[in-house]
Amino acid sequence: GPDLFLILGPCVIESEELTLRIARKVAAVSEETGIPVIFKASFDKANRTSVHSYRGPGMDAGLEILAKVKKETGLPVISDIHIPAQADAAAEVLDVIQIPAFLSRQTDLLLAASRTGRVINIKKGQFQAPDDMEHAIKKVISAGNSRIMLTERGVSFGYQDLVADMRSIIKMKRFGFPVVFDATHSSQFPGKGAGRSGGDRSFVAPLAKAAVAAGADGIFMEVHPDPDHALCDGPNCYHLDHLQHLVLVLSAIRKVVSSGTEQFSEP
Amino acid sequence: GPDLFLILGPCVIESEELTLRIARKVAAVSEETGIPVIFKASFDKANRTSVHSYRGPGMDAGLEILAKVKKETGLPVISDIHIPAQADAAAEVLDVIQIPAFLSRQTDLLLAASRTGRVINIKKGQFQAPDDMEHAIKKVISAGNSRIMLTERGVSFGYQDLVADMRSIIKMKRFGFPVVFDATHSSQFPGKGAGRSGGDRSFVAPLAKAAVAAGADGIFMEVHPDPDHALCDGPNCYHLDHLQHLVLVLSAIRKVVSSGTEQFSEP
Amino acid sequence: GPDLFLILGPCVIESEELTLRIARKVAAVSEETGIPVIFKASFDKANRTSVHSYRGPGMDAGLEILAKVKKETGLPVISDIHIPAQADAAAEVLDVIQIPAFLSRQTDLLLAASRTGRVINIKKGQFQAPDDMEHAIKKVISAGNSRIMLTERGVSFGYQDLVADMRSIIKMKRFGFPVVFDATHSSQFPGKGAGRSGGDRSFVAPLAKAAVAAGADGIFMEVHPDPDHALCDGPNCYHLDHLQHLVLVLSAIRKVVSSGTEQFSEP
Amino acid sequence: GPDLFLILGPCVIESEELTLRIARKVAAVSEETGIPVIFKASFDKANRTSVHSYRGPGMDAGLEILAKVKKETGLPVISDIHIPAQADAAAEVLDVIQIPAFLSRQTDLLLAASRTGRVINIKKGQFQAPDDMEHAIKKVISAGNSRIMLTERGVSFGYQDLVADMRSIIKMKRFGFPVVFDATHSSQFPGKGAGRSGGDRSFVAPLAKAAVAAGADGIFMEVHPDPDHALCDGPNCYHLDHLQHLVLVLSAIRKVVSSGTEQFSEP
Repeated sequence: GPDLFLILGPCVIESEELTLRIARKVAAVSEETGIPVIFKASFDKANRTSVHSYRGPGMDAGLEILAKVKKETGLPVISDIHIPAQADAAAEVLDVIQIPAFLSRQTDLLLAASRTGRVINIKKGQFQAPDDMEHAIKKVISAGNSRIMLTERGVSFGYQDLVADMRSIIKMKRFGFPVVFDATHSSQFPGKGAGRSGGDRSFVAPLAKAAVAAGADGIFMEVHPDPDHALCDGPNCYHLDHLQHLVLVLSAIRKVVSSGTEQFSEP
Repeated sequence: GPDLFLILGPCVIESEELTLRIARKVAAVSEETGIPVIFKASFDKANRTSVHSYRGPGMDAGLEILAKVKKETGLPVISDIHIPAQADAAAEVLDVIQIPAFLSRQTDLLLAASRTGRVINIKKGQFQAPDDMEHAIKKVISAGNSRIMLTERGVSFGYQDLVADMRSIIKMKRFGFPVVFDATHSSQFPGKGAGRSGGDRSFVAPLAKAAVAAGADGIFMEVHPDPDHALCDGPNCYHLDHLQHLVLVLSAIRKVVSSGTEQFSEP
Repeated sequence: GPDLFLILGPCVIESEELTLRIARKVAAVSEETGIPVIFKASFDKANRTSVHSYRGPGMDAGLEILAKVKKETGLPVISDIHIPAQADAAAEVLDVIQIPAFLSRQTDLLLAASRTGRVINIKKGQFQAPDDMEHAIKKVISAGNSRIMLTERGVSFGYQDLVADMRSIIKMKRFGFPVVFDATHSSQFPGKGAGRSGGDRSFVAPLAKAAVAAGADGIFMEVHPDPDHALCDGPNCYHLDHLQHLVLVLSAIRKVVSSGTEQFSEP
Repeated sequence: GPDLFLILGPCVIESEELTLRIARKVAAVSEETGIPVIFKASFDKANRTSVHSYRGPGMDAGLEILAKVKKETGLPVISDIHIPAQADAAAEVLDVIQIPAFLSRQTDLLLAASRTGRVINIKKGQFQAPDDMEHAIKKVISAGNSRIMLTERGVSFGYQDLVADMRSIIKMKRFGFPVVFDATHSSQFPGKGAGRSGGDRSFVAPLAKAAVAAGADGIFMEVHPDPDHALCDGPNCYHLDHLQHLVLVLSAIRKVVSSGTEQFSEP
């Protein structure tokens, strides 16, 4: 559709209580701003930098919590899977199945996700060109599903840094599917930190605004009521209290860039 | 100041007639949109890819044409110099002296430009980090001039490609000087073309919008009435006929991102 | 040990007959040059660019063929796994289990591989810094296995290109494990090709020589009797007929760089 | 010619005494190893990171010192120029005129250097692809001089880092001119340091060996008797006392890679 949408939630499910608390706040922002939101939280961070990092509650417990979020808030939910065997169970709860960036070339994972019939959000690998998404799309479609979203989440730029190439949004939109910009992970410094990914939260809002201005259909942001103590991706997590204001700004930019020429043709 | 400004004009002075024609159109856009414009055209392209490319009319003839632009349209003018010996003559006509990106570390050029007292627009090298601009700024200030602008024009990204890192705008703004985004050269594929730089014009407008959304104070764009036949940088040159509409969009985005929170606090 | 070793074989198991034919030739080169060789072939290319590409015979049939290679030639064998569930079956045949570069951060895969007690060859992700390997190493060690090799296979350099950073070899050697340089995949242009990875075979030999000169302990190369018709990675595959000469050159370079200073101290 | 050659000397002329002392040592290494050496020192570092850095004695005093080096040691000398006006004076003393990497696209500088008839060493810009050198070569040749060398000195890799792409050596050799690898500047971290370029000296020797193995005809290294107190590029400067050993290793690698197949055909 023509309207902006958002994918919002904590990096990982830290607890049922906190997850629901964030979901309620996110749902309130959605209602007050009129911008549709998909609630996101991972049940298992299967590729944390360090083996000692918190990974989440696991699939079964995590999906149960996401089902509660869905029931209580009415928000659609999205989460990521890591091996083909998780696809069917995930599809019973999730509205959107997300393919992690590192795994965006794993054929069997794409096929298994596709077969569930759920919407598939493919995150473009940090090592991939926008054009490379053609092949990921074809893999999903080959299994009978063409409900696809593509997400830009930054591309490798030297060591331990990512750059958000706004051209990628423009190029990927040419495939005809909604393009999401992940403002959280584009603000990451992978591996730069003592055993965990670093990041710079101050880039999240400007990059999100830039992406909407460049034409992104959706914005993905991890939000937390206490980013400094988040169990995952805290350094580049956005504070829940600032969310509503940012959403209104993003929505206003979207209106400017998606409006026809009429309103601007006469100064 | 808080308002958006633009640096607009052809890549190179092709002829007096064409330069004046473009300047008149640019001045009209400025007047109709209320957005201040500095007129830009190079008198000598001293670093063309190929020795056979058109370089321009040279300094003396070029400055004479720019003086006419200034007189006829009232627009301030900017152009680039390449060796210290050009600084004084250039300063007699130019309002802003531009330091080319390749030359942004040439100490004597920065000092000579600084000593003229004109505003200095330092283009960040394709090989430089935003933080590196600290040293260029200090060079200019050491010669007694602190009227500085900084321009992001893309950073090397593999071979024959540039990426526009929007974080660079945010970081450079911390120096306290206006930050310009060059949407034309950020859309360049350097060296990719038969003896001249390639580019993709379709990125110019979205990147310009993204940069304003990310906080850029100014936008630099090369414009031409017939980009396909421009003598320099045609592939990534913006069509003069589309300029006014884009300027209105950029201005509207600027208003959204620079306004206080009030207007967005009530949906 | 102080001596050079090689990992050689076809990209993928195309057929039992061809695999054995290549293995016999590789074994002969090993015997004639005195350089130890581990035979490599994938049983499943789980992340091919296109869904239509040949993937291999699958795990069970593939391991059977590798067992035959081992029995007939006496060469140790290495292959790659993609999900944790494959680790135990693979360990029954393989001497070395390889973790693909895209999957080098998948914690469960590293742990499952580690628990088999086999040597683990971790390929550094195209998106990773040499220092990042510390965390992959710790994951493997945390499951009780410290028989590790690290492989450099090129790092993302702009879009659809990889660069072989020789500093990576030097840095990774500081971890205290053997460091392998993958000359085949470092010569790849990922995604650049009509639905498959491109590459440039002419870089394989010079990069392999450079890596040995820079201190690599092992060289990984895909070899084929007919690279132009190989079913996988043909463009950057090395011709089997040229192998022995190259191995002798690599061995001679290794001798030069690993010898003490004595032989060079008196001209 | 088929033999390896070296370009050696301090980054900058610190004093006549020190320059001559280094030159004598370098000449002795050349004599004892039989490897030809061109002596290199800059008379003016025109693009230091900081305006406060030492720049050198200037052109006139510097060329006088280089003339003394030449007279006393018999070594040919090379230095770099920054503006066209320096070419003629430089050519009176220098055997090779070097075009700095940042200036490798400055047409007038290339033309002025070319017209002197001296050998021209063009350093490939940190922002350039190997293929881009075609245009720099054509500029030099257009002014009547085809005595050219090309130097790889690292390419931009993210921010404040360079990577030495060994493929560049292979690609540039296809132009038919000698290719030099600059092991010093390829070990630089530009801008990473408090107001000066950082670097890591431990990469110099392995990268030099790798480059010779990959086919480089010449190696450029900055050497100093006390790198920690060098006035320029100390962090990545090679210690003069270790030079002879390294030269012998490089020479031995060159012999291995340039010899015909005979010596290796019978194990």
